[in-house]
Amino acid sequence: MKGSESLLATATAAGVQVCFANPGTTEIPLVEAFDQVPGVRAVLALSEGVVTGAADGYARMTGVPAMTLLHLGPGFANGIANLHNARRARTPMINIIGEHASWHQPADAPLASDIESLARPVSGWVGRTTSPASAAGEFAEAYRATLGQRLPATLIAAADHMWSQGGEPAAVPAASARPAVDDQQIAAIAKLLAGGSGRTALLLGGHALSAEGIRTAARIVATTGGEVLVERSPARIERGPGIPAVRSLPYFPEDVLRSLEGFSHLVLVGARTPVAFFGYRGMPSFPLPNDLKVRTLADTDQDAVEALRALADATGSAAAEVPSTERPQAQAPAGPLTAASIAAAIVLTQPEHAIVVNEGISSGAAYPAIAAAAPPHTELTNTGGAIGMGMPAATGAAVACPDRAVINFQADGSAAYTVQALWTQAREGLDVTTVICANSRYGILEAELRRAGVAEPGAAAASMTSLAEPSMDWTAMASGFGVPSSRAATGEELLAALRKAHAEPGPHLIEAVL
Amino acid sequence: MKGSESLLATATAAGVQVCFANPGTTEIPLVEAFDQVPGVRAVLALSEGVVTGAADGYARMTGVPAMTLLHLGPGFANGIANLHNARRARTPMINIIGEHASWHQPADAPLASDIESLARPVSGWVGRTTSPASAAGEFAEAYRATLGQRLPATLIAAADHMWSQGGEPAAVPAASARPAVDDQQIAAIAKLLAGGSGRTALLLGGHALSAEGIRTAARIVATTGGEVLVERSPARIERGPGIPAVRSLPYFPEDVLRSLEGFSHLVLVGARTPVAFFGYRGMPSFPLPNDLKVRTLADTDQDAVEALRALADATGSAAAEVPSTERPQAQAPAGPLTAASIAAAIVLTQPEHAIVVNEGISSGAAYPAIAAAAPPHTELTNTGGAIGMGMPAATGAAVACPDRAVINFQADGSAAYTVQALWTQAREGLDVTTVICANSRYGILEAELRRAGVAEPGAAAASMTSLAEPSMDWTAMASGFGVPSSRAATGEELLAALRKAHAEPGPHLIEAVL
Repeated sequence: MKGSESLLATATAAGVQVCFANPGTTEIPLVEAFDQVPGVRAVLALSEGVVTGAADGYARMTGVPAMTLLHLGPGFANGIANLHNARRARTPMINIIGEHASWHQPADAPLASDIESLARPVSGWVGRTTSPASAAGEFAEAYRATLGQRLPATLIAAADHMWSQGGEPAAVPAASARPAVDDQQIAAIAKLLAGGSGRTALLLGGHALSAEGIRTAARIVATTGGEVLVERSPARIERGPGIPAVRSLPYFPEDVLRSLEGFSHLVLVGARTPVAFFGYRGMPSFPLPNDLKVRTLADTDQDAVEALRALADATGSAAAEVPSTERPQAQAPAGPLTAASIAAAIVLTQPEHAIVVNEGISSGAAYPAIAAAAPPHTELTNTGGAIGMGMPAATGAAVACPDRAVINFQADGSAAYTVQALWTQAREGLDVTTVICANSRYGILEAELRRAGVAEPGAAAASMTSLAEPSMDWTAMASGFGVPSSRAATGEELLAALRKAHAEPGPHLIEAVL
Repeated sequence: MKGSESLLATATAAGVQVCFANPGTTEIPLVEAFDQVPGVRAVLALSEGVVTGAADGYARMTGVPAMTLLHLGPGFANGIANLHNARRARTPMINIIGEHASWHQPADAPLASDIESLARPVSGWVGRTTSPASAAGEFAEAYRATLGQRLPATLIAAADHMWSQGGEPAAVPAASARPAVDDQQIAAIAKLLAGGSGRTALLLGGHALSAEGIRTAARIVATTGGEVLVERSPARIERGPGIPAVRSLPYFPEDVLRSLEGFSHLVLVGARTPVAFFGYRGMPSFPLPNDLKVRTLADTDQDAVEALRALADATGSAAAEVPSTERPQAQAPAGPLTAASIAAAIVLTQPEHAIVVNEGISSGAAYPAIAAAAPPHTELTNTGGAIGMGMPAATGAAVACPDRAVINFQADGSAAYTVQALWTQAREGLDVTTVICANSRYGILEAELRRAGVAEPGAAAASMTSLAEPSMDWTAMASGFGVPSSRAATGEELLAALRKAHAEPGPHLIEAVL
């Protein structure tokens, strides 16, 4: 069989089911092979930022890596921003970059570039095919790396290695379990919680934010005292009536400092030490009160949920009841919209087991603030700060979970980066409801200008934060990409639009005018 | 003054007039400085592919580098594809990437990444600011590099170096002239042309495609025999009644081979040796007949126009009349559209001294085929093969030349990459007429599948080349970004739409349905 066919056969055997793609000429052998070796569903996107963001959203929901198919260095480069987010989310995926035929590479043809240099900053593993016969093995190596590292892996596949005969499927590596946390480490944290050494917060991040992780952590603090906190920008967090509501760390470092006041210890459970998103004058990089000691139960690689189970045993809280937290009520919004009323309208109308992809940016904090009032759901957020992840990740999540509604709570400025995702949503008939928080500005930049002491920006600075001239017509844009749409300027209109969108199949876009 | 102000003062003194920008928090000090140090016009774009493509189009038209302002690694990464094209076009520009404050960099905040690794493949020079006091000098170094190398230069500017006092404007380096070609080399080529060693083609590329370069080359071959050829995908080529029409090298290598049949020598004049865009089975990387000898008059760095002048002197053709070539007539198209009839409609309606940005891809060859019939104009093409350059480059060309009409002959698949450029066209009131060749498919991929022997693609392969389900509504998309639009399905409708677009100020989009 051809190298391309051996690669796809190996991918299928490994359980890879989806390839998000924007192919070019060097990927033609793989495009052809999709028909010869069925098993991997190819999903086309109009630009590579959609491809990689969709693969991120897909794997966050399934735990199974998707493939991406990208065209040489420049095509890959268009996907880097969302690969950056995937790297921060610890998302497995396998990027296949079609490269010039091996014998054509020295010719420095127009599309040639240093692909490795582009790929390394966002890949835990970068490799190249070396022959048709070895290509499947090299794919298997990428697969092993992405599962082991939980980072994107990138395989640069020369066109001739793909189109030539001589390929042989390779053995599929077994999925590697997360490394376990050492018993002594668990005992040490158990001792810390038992001893009267002050108030402790468990900071949950990564896969510790599963339903079981949150419940187990809540049991522990119900027994030992302290509080469960959530990292800012989780890759994925579960919420619902059976899962205690927990506080998230805020965005600005002075607010993080305030959140951590009164604690003596911060125990990291699959989370990193809180770091300021940006450096601000007079603020530290790590916004921690001076007397706060940071300890680690499980680092971001380790099996944090198993460590929590063991810690629950060690602290005698395994059999404790999961504390119930008061469930807030969302109020039906009326009149002109605010970020909070948009979030309330979403919460009041969202179907059970929805997936909420939150790239609200300056409006984004409104959703987690009221999310405990919502039916059981999963929230995905922007982990790396590279904007334009929301619409692609919603697309990938909908491919992953066709039986769940996907709601994309989406800032307008960020939406404008990867609006092309709407086309894939229309094409695949995905049940994504996009709610554009249309404030017609880069609200976060306005806030940052104020923080920098610029109370009244001059004309040039003001023009860099305004999206108002002209303001974008999101309903027209949705029509352009084949997605039904509506506009809502009041709470009542938004509730009606959301109910309609959820009642009908396929994608919808609602422009919520702020 | 602040570091940011010293940088802008130095840019202004150097003659930099425009900064295409998509700033974030780390660029706030420069956003602020646009008001404090007037002189550089900041032009906002909705995504970074538009920013870098616009800077490319701008500098191709002015010869003066624009600045770009980009947000950390991921923001820069979104601009890489069009920087790849700019690198292949030998376009000077200075990318300023706002980086985390110097003391915050070790904290590995969410947006941190290896910016150098991303920047090197598309930059001739990459540097970092080291202090507020030295930032302007580091900018001057980037400026010297971009003018000297005629490649993008990238300066990574730490936020604290920009916001802190202590900046001092730096001396502005003088523009460096292109290195001259050696007299002996000119004499050798003159001897070649004089001696009876067979037919010679002068292959013009880069800045040799100025009006003077083409005229001088045409004078030479009128005297010595031979032919003037044009490289495929020139960064910029001038055409008009006083400029002889010259043949372009075709796209596929077998066609290049045929074009070069019958020549004994190929003399490179600011052009590279012809290289196959992709490697194909049974085709060489360099599609040159076996008996063709390649010689160089001027390489891509050297002063090719001056070398042509000297060659004209040496061959006694300096005073020769510029040969007049027959000017074809474009026929007014009627009935259903084809790529050729779209090109004819453009040619028949285009204002004098228009700038035609050609990213027609599978329709693209139709324009140069009839362009000799058009009034005097400049054509810009996609030099690097990274698609999505057309709309951004048209935007930048219109900023560069407000008194010239810009026409963007644009494939639909490529347009979908950077359609966000329309918003900047609307915002700045730019006189760009975009003609979308809406064939609702990746036509070039269909052609490549056929070349690969796939006469009847299977369902999966066919779905990777089709943009038809749903087909995009380009008029709706234009409305979404604030650009007036129309749709034309026949030659008559297209002529009317083009006349209307040219008669009215500001941008227009015409969906030409194929």
